[in-house]
Amino acid sequence: MEEGEEVVSDKTLLIEDLYVNVQKEETLAISKNLCHENGVSAETDSDRTSGDDGRLESDDNDPIHPQIPGWFAEHSPLWPGQAHFMKVEKILFQGKSQYQSMMVFQSSAYGKVFVLDGALQLTEKDECAYQEMITHLPLCSLPNPQKVLLIGGGDGGILREISRHSSVLHIDICEIDMMLIDVYKEFFPDIAIGYEDSRVNLHVMDGSKFLTSAQRGTYDAIIVDAFDPIWQGHEIFEGSFLKLVREALRPGGIMCIQAESLWFPSLSIPKLIANCRHIFKGSVSYAWTLVPSYPSGTIGFMLCSTEEPCDVDFTHPINPIDNVDANNHHGVARGPLNFYNSEVHSAAFCLPSFAIARNDD
Amino acid sequence: MEEGEEVVSDKTLLIEDLYVNVQKEETLAISKNLCHENGVSAETDSDRTSGDDGRLESDDNDPIHPQIPGWFAEHSPLWPGQAHFMKVEKILFQGKSQYQSMMVFQSSAYGKVFVLDGALQLTEKDECAYQEMITHLPLCSLPNPQKVLLIGGGDGGILREISRHSSVLHIDICEIDMMLIDVYKEFFPDIAIGYEDSRVNLHVMDGSKFLTSAQRGTYDAIIVDAFDPIWQGHEIFEGSFLKLVREALRPGGIMCIQAESLWFPSLSIPKLIANCRHIFKGSVSYAWTLVPSYPSGTIGFMLCSTEEPCDVDFTHPINPIDNVDANNHHGVARGPLNFYNSEVHSAAFCLPSFAIARNDD
Repeated sequence: MEEGEEVVSDKTLLIEDLYVNVQKEETLAISKNLCHENGVSAETDSDRTSGDDGRLESDDNDPIHPQIPGWFAEHSPLWPGQAHFMKVEKILFQGKSQYQSMMVFQSSAYGKVFVLDGALQLTEKDECAYQEMITHLPLCSLPNPQKVLLIGGGDGGILREISRHSSVLHIDICEIDMMLIDVYKEFFPDIAIGYEDSRVNLHVMDGSKFLTSAQRGTYDAIIVDAFDPIWQGHEIFEGSFLKLVREALRPGGIMCIQAESLWFPSLSIPKLIANCRHIFKGSVSYAWTLVPSYPSGTIGFMLCSTEEPCDVDFTHPINPIDNVDANNHHGVARGPLNFYNSEVHSAAFCLPSFAIARNDD
Repeated sequence: MEEGEEVVSDKTLLIEDLYVNVQKEETLAISKNLCHENGVSAETDSDRTSGDDGRLESDDNDPIHPQIPGWFAEHSPLWPGQAHFMKVEKILFQGKSQYQSMMVFQSSAYGKVFVLDGALQLTEKDECAYQEMITHLPLCSLPNPQKVLLIGGGDGGILREISRHSSVLHIDICEIDMMLIDVYKEFFPDIAIGYEDSRVNLHVMDGSKFLTSAQRGTYDAIIVDAFDPIWQGHEIFEGSFLKLVREALRPGGIMCIQAESLWFPSLSIPKLIANCRHIFKGSVSYAWTLVPSYPSGTIGFMLCSTEEPCDVDFTHPINPIDNVDANNHHGVARGPLNFYNSEVHSAAFCLPSFAIARNDD
């Protein structure tokens, strides 16, 4: 048990007991808050507050983020001038923890959707493309990963993916918000199933605090799913977080963290690689995956290894887990991989020419 | 000159003479038509017809396709429950040819955008990812392409890309709508520059008619950019068009055609490959590229070769045109490749596991 850590048993709390009152009593207030604070407009047709004349209210205070009642669009200030709307069939949950606001809705096109502080976190339709890639890109680049740390990723999907690796003996997850975990367990059981792996140790606390007291040089891989996508100007490069990650990795250990889309106008992949190499000293590569519910339809990852005599070659998986037959080990997942395979692994590192060349600020 | 072919010199017609009157006199009518017929709502703030109370009119007749005045979203009935909106800075052109309606607008996020019958055709920001891939995937899979036919692709971007291949001696393009060509030449000169290649022969006529009278076994490659993306149930498999394409190709020649996104719910890539192999008899592969302005952020291609003793291996470019230095041949393009390179070529054929496995109807 680390200092400052909240004592939590890894059992699903009765979310009905915890949040139903909030949901019943505060839904309207929360809904209005969400609409105002986060620029989302997710009320269903039945929730419309406009009159019977079919005319809908516009949001005069937010010309950048348009709204359509009954539809949801993430408020993405980094992607101005565009908005990807999803039709909302039903809002399933709205609530606020001490850290953040949450919403779960049933969409027409993407299955269930989880929204955190107005930002789209995942959808049932395409979560596989994110969870499988952020997990297996690092773990399949290591010969025998045994000890893995996940910072963030409270939904449990990355845990589910780590569980496919039978070499892994110990999984720490550090997630600050217990309510987020419980909401996922309630509404996304096929994702939160990752918590059912007996190798999982849940630490409900701040990731930086956990790293400060973690044993040096102990993890084979650390997966970070707790920040906005990083780019060369991200504030993460001003703090000590990445250095703490480096210290907690064994020599030649790997960190994988979400990075900006290659279509992000200000992204310079060469500079992002240089920033990461300055910290981690080993091999650094940018990879990407397809996530249609994210702006631009794609999102990136940075893979960084700490120094050791041999460089890590991320582009060729030396620890493959392809589903060549139905007898493969699925861990606690309900079935085989949906997205990841060894070919897709290698392809993820192939970048369009403009993304390699763009080295401006 | 083929029978039924319209006589056209390959010079930019004076678009001012042809369309300015239409634009001036009919803009309002066309605008209303577009909004009604195609489900687009692209009037800028200054064009709003709503009152001063900030309340905007909803489209009660189209609950599937939401509208936001001042923003454009493609009407995509194949992708219900989602809509990707782009902010419209200024409508630059609206008009109707005898075949279709066209709109050009300046967007905030994607540069200039071309819309055909309400469907987004291309944006300046990401056209490179489409034009370069649909061209170089086939042409870099052939050892010495000399004679190329383009059906559709009236914008000229694929011509621009073909022009990078110095082995090519003759380029036929078959585009039915002269007005479309002229609108591109007026508003997208860096794309329509493809027409300036002296090897280009423009045939303003229907592609099927052109193919009917084309010499058999004559083309090294035929690029088809004239249909909605194909999938295993597309009507193209009921007609004679693809057989005409096959007949016009030399043995071992290659067709490349736009295919549905791998995220398209009903797409079965194995069945699409089987349908194409039944017609073309040679090698058939599905590839994909990233196009953030298209639904799901990605679009596919079918590459099909006619039978010859050796199969074509599309996945490894045997005729590379990577821009390793600044002295490369750019044809009539204003600069080097933006998206395509040999690594991206090979990566384009690596498919997520669900896309390989999905074989249902």
